[in-house]
Amino acid sequence: MKVTETLARYALEASYQSFPKEVVHQAKRCFLDLIGVALGGANQPLAKVLLKTVREFGGNSQATVWGHGIKTSVAQAALVNGAMAHALDYDDTHVRAMGHPSAPLIPALLAVGEWKGASGKEALEAFIAGFEVETRIGEGMGVKHYDRGWHATATFGRFGAAVGAGKILGLDLEQMKRAMGLAGTQAAGLRLVFGTMTKPFHPGKSAFDGVLSAILAQRGFTCASNIIEGKKGYLEALGEDSRLEPMVKNLGKKYEVLNNTFKPYAACLFTHPTIDALIQMRNKYRLRPEEVEEISCDVARFCLDAAGQGEPKTALAGKFSVYYCAALALAEGVAGEDMFTDRKVLDPRMVALRKKVKARGVPGYKDTEAKVTVTTKEGKTYSIHVDIPKGDPRNPPNDKEMEEKFRSLAGGVLAKPKRDRLVKTIWGLEKLGNIRQLTRLCF
Amino acid sequence: MKVTETLARYALEASYQSFPKEVVHQAKRCFLDLIGVALGGANQPLAKVLLKTVREFGGNSQATVWGHGIKTSVAQAALVNGAMAHALDYDDTHVRAMGHPSAPLIPALLAVGEWKGASGKEALEAFIAGFEVETRIGEGMGVKHYDRGWHATATFGRFGAAVGAGKILGLDLEQMKRAMGLAGTQAAGLRLVFGTMTKPFHPGKSAFDGVLSAILAQRGFTCASNIIEGKKGYLEALGEDSRLEPMVKNLGKKYEVLNNTFKPYAACLFTHPTIDALIQMRNKYRLRPEEVEEISCDVARFCLDAAGQGEPKTALAGKFSVYYCAALALAEGVAGEDMFTDRKVLDPRMVALRKKVKARGVPGYKDTEAKVTVTTKEGKTYSIHVDIPKGDPRNPPNDKEMEEKFRSLAGGVLAKPKRDRLVKTIWGLEKLGNIRQLTRLCF
Repeated sequence: MKVTETLARYALEASYQSFPKEVVHQAKRCFLDLIGVALGGANQPLAKVLLKTVREFGGNSQATVWGHGIKTSVAQAALVNGAMAHALDYDDTHVRAMGHPSAPLIPALLAVGEWKGASGKEALEAFIAGFEVETRIGEGMGVKHYDRGWHATATFGRFGAAVGAGKILGLDLEQMKRAMGLAGTQAAGLRLVFGTMTKPFHPGKSAFDGVLSAILAQRGFTCASNIIEGKKGYLEALGEDSRLEPMVKNLGKKYEVLNNTFKPYAACLFTHPTIDALIQMRNKYRLRPEEVEEISCDVARFCLDAAGQGEPKTALAGKFSVYYCAALALAEGVAGEDMFTDRKVLDPRMVALRKKVKARGVPGYKDTEAKVTVTTKEGKTYSIHVDIPKGDPRNPPNDKEMEEKFRSLAGGVLAKPKRDRLVKTIWGLEKLGNIRQLTRLCF
Repeated sequence: MKVTETLARYALEASYQSFPKEVVHQAKRCFLDLIGVALGGANQPLAKVLLKTVREFGGNSQATVWGHGIKTSVAQAALVNGAMAHALDYDDTHVRAMGHPSAPLIPALLAVGEWKGASGKEALEAFIAGFEVETRIGEGMGVKHYDRGWHATATFGRFGAAVGAGKILGLDLEQMKRAMGLAGTQAAGLRLVFGTMTKPFHPGKSAFDGVLSAILAQRGFTCASNIIEGKKGYLEALGEDSRLEPMVKNLGKKYEVLNNTFKPYAACLFTHPTIDALIQMRNKYRLRPEEVEEISCDVARFCLDAAGQGEPKTALAGKFSVYYCAALALAEGVAGEDMFTDRKVLDPRMVALRKKVKARGVPGYKDTEAKVTVTTKEGKTYSIHVDIPKGDPRNPPNDKEMEEKFRSLAGGVLAKPKRDRLVKTIWGLEKLGNIRQLTRLCF
């Protein structure tokens, strides 16, 4: 099966005219969400180290580092923006591909788009082409690829970034296959580094490598044309019970971008059903923390695997603690980025409530499922079961909610008038003559 | 087993004073060989594409692109030099690690050394530390890692480059472990791309990623401290029956650099026993091509797997054709880089002789073994068996032969006086106050 060629051909042929309206609109929501979380992450320590490093390397002023307004070479801009975009672990998720599709992709295509002066329509085409290709590769590689230790965001992200960048550059079919070859032979990223700065580094590096791949392919660099399916290629080396069929299924007919999840809460996705249930609980029964005797959470087993930190001491650990998240949701009724600080995680009031949280993995529970039971000191019990949490493609945030998330995250680096113009520009992306009209609003 | 920490600690402690004399001398031979093959590859098409690309990216003048005298950022210089070093597939080989140890390592440490003004002794320390670490990791990963599709040069090379660069930068223990973590989480490179420009791109990219890893670690970037052995880490994700024990065996007691193979012939290593036998045959029996009826080669089975191209049409294919190599050795008595050109491979006289070559894989033959039988038109037969070919650590080239290889390869870009000074500088590397005294001779 010529998977690489089929995907490359699809990417070449993807055109704005052919996209259903809701796909274009969803793509804009992805841009809004991704740029928002990147601006929210712009002053994280890891972003500062990367920025300092690329400034020391130097480079021509080809593309902007968002939130800072510094211009550097196109690949280096993609690196820093991609890492910023995942710094808060608050960016979008494609559940079946088991990763974050926009963080490697949008920084890559916007850097190249800014460099080349591409139009908004071209950026939308590059995004949808990259998204559909990378998430299908991710889905085909499957859960055992992830189980083996691969950070899927980092591995499929190289393909997304190369395809997105290559689409903007106008690669021909052979070049696109080679760009994917270069991307595949650089694909890497290990889950062992989770919990360190290197996790968000992954999509940044994917963006960098993808941009480099597309540029080299355009300049005649040769590479294998069948990287995914070829002998001693991507699937053989990185796969584990991986399958080619899902990689080309329904290409151009169904759009995976419609299956994208936007995080309403700034924590690990697997905590979201629990957070959702406890916010509902709080609003419905007007429960106050001091009334609570115990919070008992039934969750999917994978939730405890990914977010089972019992005694979080830092903001980051709090995002991966279903215990802290449950306490937070009941106490505050919100779980945005400003609720995940070291201070908040260590706040004695939060610690006391968190210690009342019990969680157990229930065999058969879906990852989107949680049942929460609160027992009060008076002996009353309240129970809420969540099947599909807020943010799930079947329960998506509306545009206004997405704007609110954006404004809250971007507020640290952009004044209100610029934020407003940026939001408006993204909603009108297809009308943009030059992507620089967007990137100059990103700082 | 704390493999990552043990290796990092070894790298930190490796000091010029502790190295046996023959180890230091062998290290210099590696520098001589590697810089020679890189200069020989400096004008290959792939080097030109990379050079054009990094010039377009721009960057501060931190390190030199050899053979061109262009200065660019330290990581980009490592990228181009590393790719040039493997462009001819003529660089050194560590057989048990199944890869080319110097091509990712020396470009990385010399770029950082030039940038920081390190001494010759520091460069030797960085080289030996990087070499001993990367080849042990390669050996521990083992043959099934390679069988699975991984280009070992590219995967272990990230570690070599990070350790070499990190040693020059003076990383502390925690930083060195993190640099190795960053290297491991970027380690990639697929054998499917063999035969394209992307194969030599691999060690260049390893050098780039290794330099970036070391610099980020120095600046406080956090990463896992146990990348090799940790859960969801390097060995779990990329390994296949891989073992930790060989990675730390005899560290500081035995030196793997003494097991390095220098290629006397500009072809796939597995053709070397055959070439060796036919050069001996020619010299011993004064055979002329027109007298020959048949050349029958018994070789290791892996030789035909790696170098079994029956009808080579290009210089590169000729390097991976034991048939062409056999014909060449008998006809010319040499097999240097200038014997591998498209013209020579297609020369009717060579084609005619090549068609008289038969080769068969013999079960039980070692990779270093070949038995060649020549039958003349007069019906005479001559037979020579080679057990350990020239270049093997047990049959190494002497310093004069290594200088000859260097001079021949560097001749395309360096005039004789500069070549002579460069050779002299490398033999006196430990006396060099500043590595820039060496790099300024490399163009």
